[in-house]
Amino acid sequence: MASDLSAATLQPVLAQINAEYARALDDDRLEDWPEFFTDPCLYVITSADNHRQGFAAGVVYADSKGMLHDRVAALRQANIYERHTYRHLVGLPAVIGEEDGHARAETPFLVVRIMRDGRMDLFATGRYLDLLVDDGRALRFRERVVVCDSNRFDTLLAIPL
Amino acid sequence: MASDLSAATLQPVLAQINAEYARALDDDRLEDWPEFFTDPCLYVITSADNHRQGFAAGVVYADSKGMLHDRVAALRQANIYERHTYRHLVGLPAVIGEEDGHARAETPFLVVRIMRDGRMDLFATGRYLDLLVDDGRALRFRERVVVCDSNRFDTLLAIPL
Amino acid sequence: MASDLSAATLQPVLAQINAEYARALDDDRLEDWPEFFTDPCLYVITSADNHRQGFAAGVVYADSKGMLHDRVAALRQANIYERHTYRHLVGLPAVIGEEDGHARAETPFLVVRIMRDGRMDLFATGRYLDLLVDDGRALRFRERVVVCDSNRFDTLLAIPL
Repeated sequence: MASDLSAATLQPVLAQINAEYARALDDDRLEDWPEFFTDPCLYVITSADNHRQGFAAGVVYADSKGMLHDRVAALRQANIYERHTYRHLVGLPAVIGEEDGHARAETPFLVVRIMRDGRMDLFATGRYLDLLVDDGRALRFRERVVVCDSNRFDTLLAIPL
Repeated sequence: MASDLSAATLQPVLAQINAEYARALDDDRLEDWPEFFTDPCLYVITSADNHRQGFAAGVVYADSKGMLHDRVAALRQANIYERHTYRHLVGLPAVIGEEDGHARAETPFLVVRIMRDGRMDLFATGRYLDLLVDDGRALRFRERVVVCDSNRFDTLLAIPL
Repeated sequence: MASDLSAATLQPVLAQINAEYARALDDDRLEDWPEFFTDPCLYVITSADNHRQGFAAGVVYADSKGMLHDRVAALRQANIYERHTYRHLVGLPAVIGEEDGHARAETPFLVVRIMRDGRMDLFATGRYLDLLVDDGRALRFRERVVVCDSNRFDTLLAIPL
């Protein structure tokens, strides 16, 4: 029951950080996005197939806040994604474990893309594999591995997930 | 950290009211819907474009429980929406702030429309911009501004969002 | 307010069990799925129309852990579902009531199906009507009635919902 108590305590905290993360992305406050991570960190976007086969790299890879900022700068320059907006629906977090101020969690997500003409489509589904730490001021992602269910990738110049 | 503690405390409360709200709508208990609001209140459905440009009106506007009840009565008479059902998936609430028994929150949503023949489509995505107050008996919406991501509106005679 | 306090206390616990349940299914750990239930139990998949008309049977019916295990074995033999994967997005639980260690809850869900070629579609939406009990070691489902919004059923040889 100890782990259940711990999960129940962490649930609201993980709900809040996941909600804030999704909100920053969907509000197009991409410059705030690196602040959700520690430095160094691990941020990867990969596919379920790649992840199952143990490939670490993914289609997006960053291991520092600097690399996250670089990615945002590249997106701002490319300017391509501005034609669309996105809506992240983040599901209920599953608390996997907690130890020494670190928390492991796995959280499903769904992203809808909204075209300028109003059409909507399912852009991506998957799960976040997270390692979170409390750095004394806030909870941050030490690792966020984004495992997309589909192998069809349209994210090279798209928003972070 | 004070605001984090506050967010963690509010999370379960906001999850519950959002779940009850969505359930009332999807169960077609529209007559219960105005009870989620204070009187007076502010209920608006608008688009992201309109909201960005500062237009207050929206395609649906109500500032009292009476107006919400009128809208339900109009829907019952029009009878049009009965051909479909809807399923609201409300995402994780982001607690923005709390003060003097008021809470500001922003919560994403996705609505699926289910046709009588079984087909399903993405009907709407967006976010709720909420101001909630505890009136001593329950938490209620003082403001719920529904900002739809798409500009394609099919809601004039549809269910509340 | 007592019931509100109770709902706020139960929210994180229900979020956690729902997240673990969805994760087991989407990770294809079907053999773990019966462990979420008491023995005996009630697990039913039905349609909104059937449920409204009071038909208890549903397209899937199980009243023991043995029957749940049999269903998993049948799915493993049939092997059909392996061509696809699924992603459950479970919405916010609505706590309906609590009494004597039993909790009633209603929780919406959405399932996306991901084809081997990467295409995604809305597979199902609906709600879980749950009766949960604490058996002293963990919270388990005494009843989980899965009411699908659509009458189009493609679940006879598909994964559990």
